[in-house]
Amino acid sequence: MSGKGSAPRGLFLSFEGIDGSGKSTQARMLADRLRDQGHDVVLTREPGGSPGAEEIRALVLQGDPDRWSAETEILLFTAARRDHLERTIRPALDRGAVVICDRFADSTRMYQGMSRGDLRKTVDDLHDLMIGVEPDLTLLIDMDPDRGLARAKSRQTIEERFEDFGAALQHKMRAGFLGLAGEFPGRYRIVDGDDTPENVADRVADVVAGHLPAIAG
Amino acid sequence: MSGKGSAPRGLFLSFEGIDGSGKSTQARMLADRLRDQGHDVVLTREPGGSPGAEEIRALVLQGDPDRWSAETEILLFTAARRDHLERTIRPALDRGAVVICDRFADSTRMYQGMSRGDLRKTVDDLHDLMIGVEPDLTLLIDMDPDRGLARAKSRQTIEERFEDFGAALQHKMRAGFLGLAGEFPGRYRIVDGDDTPENVADRVADVVAGHLPAIAG
Repeated sequence: MSGKGSAPRGLFLSFEGIDGSGKSTQARMLADRLRDQGHDVVLTREPGGSPGAEEIRALVLQGDPDRWSAETEILLFTAARRDHLERTIRPALDRGAVVICDRFADSTRMYQGMSRGDLRKTVDDLHDLMIGVEPDLTLLIDMDPDRGLARAKSRQTIEERFEDFGAALQHKMRAGFLGLAGEFPGRYRIVDGDDTPENVADRVADVVAGHLPAIAG
Repeated sequence: MSGKGSAPRGLFLSFEGIDGSGKSTQARMLADRLRDQGHDVVLTREPGGSPGAEEIRALVLQGDPDRWSAETEILLFTAARRDHLERTIRPALDRGAVVICDRFADSTRMYQGMSRGDLRKTVDDLHDLMIGVEPDLTLLIDMDPDRGLARAKSRQTIEERFEDFGAALQHKMRAGFLGLAGEFPGRYRIVDGDDTPENVADRVADVVAGHLPAIAG
């Protein structure tokens, strides 16, 4: 984990990608694989990931999509992220665990920035002020946008409002994530997600292998 | 209302003061008086003041007082304030109304800053970034702290956790509000609250008189 405070001993990984890219499946498969190897793993997600953050998530995602302005929504997501960081991520890293987070701040940067260009700066300013932490590695599960959309449509989730975008927006989101990968080359790793889950999981494991903390004996 | 955006035509008033100072009573009495004179008045409060902000208020104030860190709490209060500003305060000012707000950002400055000195800067940074607006006038209902405490203790409100402080803290809070009045002399008016509600209401009305917008005919 890069950012303020004393250096933690664990490893902070985030998964990003368009809806239907398989990032949640890959996060889970990596957690299982690392646990089998004896690692202390915390699998978590955003928005949410701690009891308080899950309550804020419900407040944001349920009800009329227009009930919050973009700015209020960014404040609520930042509040949820702060709680998630304090209650789940930081304690786990401090004890040396591998934290695997399904979405982190990059999802907010991407979705809000895509909806209105000027919001990217608001997201970044709030992040710098109240979060100040990035993952050690971000795995972008890259996927053909049309295949991702077909997958996403076969599911019914609480994030439905974010998935009701159509093909043009799937393409724009893919470009957005690739743009973030270009912006943060130090921590981004692009993994081709257009394959069987098992083959993608092998690629993910290869990327992570050199970064894992020692297993506590 | 001072701050970003086009100049609104209404008048934005906030009431601040220690618990039991009578600020809520005075806010209500002023609203009644101005309505009797024919003014368009919106009486509102913080935390809360719009449907979304009231939901955030409930999230913050209910449950274990330690469930949120101070930083997360400030983010949630700022989210509530942004919603309150967008949905209640700004539309009312834009149509020329008098907005009377029972507590505004100064309460956050005071309570959070009192609990931990470094938080005042966090509150201010978030305010500058996401709110950027101050009342035209802030009426500080000043009150002997021991009398205020006795009054506050005779009530049972959702704000109980903020009132369970004792006499020493009431004194500290009074000093805190007087400090804010010294910091923002342009908009602060100190009104002696140690009198009958009617006499205090007369003083409040005198302070406000010269600032009222024209009554729409």
